[in-house]
Amino acid sequence: MTEHSLWPFSRAFHRAINERQTEELEAVIDDDVDWAIYGPIDMFTFLGARSGKEAVLEVIRQIADNFRVNRFDRETVMLGVDSAASMLRYSLTTLDSNKPISLRLAHFARFKAGRLLSIRVLVDTFDLVQQVLERDIAADLTGDKPGKI
Amino acid sequence: MTEHSLWPFSRAFHRAINERQTEELEAVIDDDVDWAIYGPIDMFTFLGARSGKEAVLEVIRQIADNFRVNRFDRETVMLGVDSAASMLRYSLTTLDSNKPISLRLAHFARFKAGRLLSIRVLVDTFDLVQQVLERDIAADLTGDKPGKI
Repeated sequence: MTEHSLWPFSRAFHRAINERQTEELEAVIDDDVDWAIYGPIDMFTFLGARSGKEAVLEVIRQIADNFRVNRFDRETVMLGVDSAASMLRYSLTTLDSNKPISLRLAHFARFKAGRLLSIRVLVDTFDLVQQVLERDIAADLTGDKPGKI
Repeated sequence: MTEHSLWPFSRAFHRAINERQTEELEAVIDDDVDWAIYGPIDMFTFLGARSGKEAVLEVIRQIADNFRVNRFDRETVMLGVDSAASMLRYSLTTLDSNKPISLRLAHFARFKAGRLLSIRVLVDTFDLVQQVLERDIAADLTGDKPGKI
């Protein structure tokens, strides 16, 4: 039984982020890949949709320019024949300020002939924004009224 | 072939939210259910972890007290024998102020004998907070520097 396409993609992705080399990754991404990380694209230019291998490699380089992955725990994974979904918890460091960031994300991916064909990623963006800006936005916004809703 | 456990749970859940009746839901939730919606629990008391059927029914009533589901699109779904993961896009209305909210979420669920045993939900919380508070927090926070990272 051959290895599921998720694993070589995951290894190549994490190597691309931490070692800033995308050669391995190029081999496991389809030319017509469809990519989206949902979130506030005005704040983080590496969020949003990308289409095609070049655009995806470029956005992965951009992520690599900003973050280092210290560790990740794959909390849940579901594997289909040519599909995979996981929930992951990441411990990251921002490269410019050496700030620790932890975030949770969920992804749904589809593969074709061992290459990533599409991926949709949802990030716990509110938490991410709070950590990057080092502000307790929740407290700022709710004032004395926690649990206002 | 019998129906996957996700579908009766999903129907009962949405009925519980929109019709505020949890009878059907009680039949499809395990007594020892383990539940979590990740997000800023200080802002939204219905987020966070719940353990056991009573606590879960209570939090679902709390969600029902705050929101009505106008529509949802299941953008992706993966079904395992006793597991399911989806990405969904919801159009909601807040009941107190009749405000439209749209959000995307991902869930990973496990079932046992047709009942929900565990679920982990990740919501695009930043977007949710912006909509509920009707503020462009991204603009507030980044000022003139969109794409600051």
